[in-house]
Amino acid sequence: MKRQLTLYFFLIPFFLSAQNNDSLVIRGIFEEALTNGKAYSWLDHICNDIGPRLTGSANANKAVDYVKSELDKLEIDHAYKQDVMVPHWVRGDKEEAWFISNSKKEILKVCALGGSVGTGNNGITAKVIEVHDWEEMTKLGKEIISGKIVFMNHIMDPKFINPFEAYGEAAKYRYSTSSKAAVLGAVAVVVRSMNVSVDDFPHTGAMGYVDSLPKIPTCAISTFGANKLSEALKNDSKLNFYLRQSCTTLEDVPSYNVIGEIKGTEFPDEIIIVGGHLDSWDLAQGATDDGTGVVQSMEVLNLIKALHLQPKRTIRCVAFMNEENGLKGGKKYAEQSKLNHEHPIAALESDEGGFTPRGFDFKGDSLQVKKVMQWKELFVPYGLHEWEVGYGGADINPLADQGVLLMGFKPDPQRYFDYHHAATDTFDKVNHRELELGAASMTALVWMISQYGLK
Amino acid sequence: MKRQLTLYFFLIPFFLSAQNNDSLVIRGIFEEALTNGKAYSWLDHICNDIGPRLTGSANANKAVDYVKSELDKLEIDHAYKQDVMVPHWVRGDKEEAWFISNSKKEILKVCALGGSVGTGNNGITAKVIEVHDWEEMTKLGKEIISGKIVFMNHIMDPKFINPFEAYGEAAKYRYSTSSKAAVLGAVAVVVRSMNVSVDDFPHTGAMGYVDSLPKIPTCAISTFGANKLSEALKNDSKLNFYLRQSCTTLEDVPSYNVIGEIKGTEFPDEIIIVGGHLDSWDLAQGATDDGTGVVQSMEVLNLIKALHLQPKRTIRCVAFMNEENGLKGGKKYAEQSKLNHEHPIAALESDEGGFTPRGFDFKGDSLQVKKVMQWKELFVPYGLHEWEVGYGGADINPLADQGVLLMGFKPDPQRYFDYHHAATDTFDKVNHRELELGAASMTALVWMISQYGLK
Repeated sequence: MKRQLTLYFFLIPFFLSAQNNDSLVIRGIFEEALTNGKAYSWLDHICNDIGPRLTGSANANKAVDYVKSELDKLEIDHAYKQDVMVPHWVRGDKEEAWFISNSKKEILKVCALGGSVGTGNNGITAKVIEVHDWEEMTKLGKEIISGKIVFMNHIMDPKFINPFEAYGEAAKYRYSTSSKAAVLGAVAVVVRSMNVSVDDFPHTGAMGYVDSLPKIPTCAISTFGANKLSEALKNDSKLNFYLRQSCTTLEDVPSYNVIGEIKGTEFPDEIIIVGGHLDSWDLAQGATDDGTGVVQSMEVLNLIKALHLQPKRTIRCVAFMNEENGLKGGKKYAEQSKLNHEHPIAALESDEGGFTPRGFDFKGDSLQVKKVMQWKELFVPYGLHEWEVGYGGADINPLADQGVLLMGFKPDPQRYFDYHHAATDTFDKVNHRELELGAASMTALVWMISQYGLK
Repeated sequence: MKRQLTLYFFLIPFFLSAQNNDSLVIRGIFEEALTNGKAYSWLDHICNDIGPRLTGSANANKAVDYVKSELDKLEIDHAYKQDVMVPHWVRGDKEEAWFISNSKKEILKVCALGGSVGTGNNGITAKVIEVHDWEEMTKLGKEIISGKIVFMNHIMDPKFINPFEAYGEAAKYRYSTSSKAAVLGAVAVVVRSMNVSVDDFPHTGAMGYVDSLPKIPTCAISTFGANKLSEALKNDSKLNFYLRQSCTTLEDVPSYNVIGEIKGTEFPDEIIIVGGHLDSWDLAQGATDDGTGVVQSMEVLNLIKALHLQPKRTIRCVAFMNEENGLKGGKKYAEQSKLNHEHPIAALESDEGGFTPRGFDFKGDSLQVKKVMQWKELFVPYGLHEWEVGYGGADINPLADQGVLLMGFKPDPQRYFDYHHAATDTFDKVNHRELELGAASMTALVWMISQYGLK
């Protein structure tokens, strides 16, 4: 009993002083980010000077070189490019859709979904069948669907408080309606955009075919256009719809993940990864998806250097290539990590926008999760109340079988799906303070892991 | 012991069931707001169809009539206008500033501060003294300041995590530098805008004179312009600065608070007030300041009606007039409440923007605060983690001596001061989901008080 008491009294001041020191370091990280952070000007360049960065495009290559050169300027221990072969889908120069009802032509804003085939030069003209989910579509059956265009008018449910949950429920209709409609003999698919607002910007995103089934052209229609088409079909269910798109998939091309690291002073082999993805869709500047994640991850290294912090474990920033339509960068990184017998202990991804930080989610073993969760109170003064068991992120997920704690940065989720994969995802949608607060939150978490490890 | 136990077991299911029922009602409030809320379209009208609503202007009157007519449409128990005499300051049609340095004329974006006198038709030309706080200004003294224009270049401190704290520290320089500079013989004052970003939009706001001192013209300069002027002064401390503004204060005019209420079914005399202010500055659409607060307060009544909820206590929405430059509406409301021997028990104000809700602050006696704080867990699923002792709001503050619990709605604070009192405060800065989540949060809190009271 006496011994326990001694230990107890001995530990309290140590613990308090460690906590106190941690909270001072974290305060310093936030103040440096808010006064001298570089993330916002990096993002300005990536969005406004480079622009859309679809995997395989010239802009994606420009972005690779830019990130590499900016990492070099930070005078970190190592900055390099990691080869990765990536798919090369292109939209082409034709994209049009209209319907004719009561002799009136109504033009609609559509965009091919990533991975879709084109329609050929003559386009496709057919009747339209509106459905709201797969059950409804399957019930209609081959007899009704065959030879028609399926219009999947599934609305993202506004009742979810977190729109990511609505997306989680709805996004399958973008990815897989095409193959399910092909089974029923449909000639094309038009999917309502994954957008919680009603506006006239179509939102693209990945779709996939099943090899054994016919590949039919698939596009997204703006939410405004979807409402208009739905109205028109109520009055004229036999209206003729015309779709033309000239997208196609070319040969794979070489590209890169871009990596920068600060070596740990005591356990350099234990690696903490922090990243976002550098590719975007071709319609957007890719500001919130995911320019913000890339520049926040770069900022982690910058803040640590600027504050002369000496992490005990290695911190590695990764700008992943090809999250949007293949995940080749994330897979390649994990593969190389395994081949090189590396020892990654944690990976943090920012791919939900550069909005005000709300928290993190974690996917790992219970001891890892318990260890990070005990730091939550250090982050509450900065508004990060939401520490939950969750998912991590797409690019880091391939690391799951290497014993890594996967961590997802959770910013405020309300605005993300207004811009996601659409022309509205531009630099001006990002607030410089919100972006930097997120970068500081990520830096603070990475810093804590670098000092205390996860055992 | 036996009796206590019985009571205990009797109460648990009751308590759980009440909590469960409350959480269901709150869920219903959020879902109704997110699917059928009216706040966003009301705000659209107030901002885009009416526009700036400076106290005393024709637009302010239009807004009064609009809010009254929309409240009428809700078929609530009572909607009416409350007379209030208000100040009538006008900007006039001339507002210009430049400096000449090395024979080059540099035009600057400035705006008169609310309440300032004009310069006369010829404007004022004088040398400029840059200072950063009052201590520095006072040290320079009369000899150096006299006959010059004081340039108060106080920067809102970016290191505060909550920009409202930075504003709390900095806003006094906008309100009172003029009188302090007049003591030292200054001929005019140029104040750096209260803006956490660097852009070229000047931010207006109230300033005040001391009756016994000379009234000198006072304007705000954009943060970009302030940086430019400061740079220029480093190279040429004798540069000539020209300022002209034709603002003036006219006679007081009649105006109105607009009030709507739903009577309580059991305790109709106990009144819960929820409000925002209808006036704005003349440069802005007044979207976030404070169109959002007005439409969210109207939404409280709308949601309660739409869900057929029957509050036990009276809920009263107030669109206050003249928060920005006089607070006459708030004062008049409190005065009438006292004169009529009303029994207000709580007042909730939304005047920090329509951003994602983060929590509430409370100012009242400890029992009142304790009572509301016990409901916090019901709000955490909606992201409202921050329940703190605080301030309430400017319009409701005059009710403090009537035993009222004052409550301030706290949305995410990061973007507010980018737009505050500037031409950038427009409808497009408001996100429809964020706005409705705030309205639902306010409705839920008001609902809980209406059911359980504050005793």
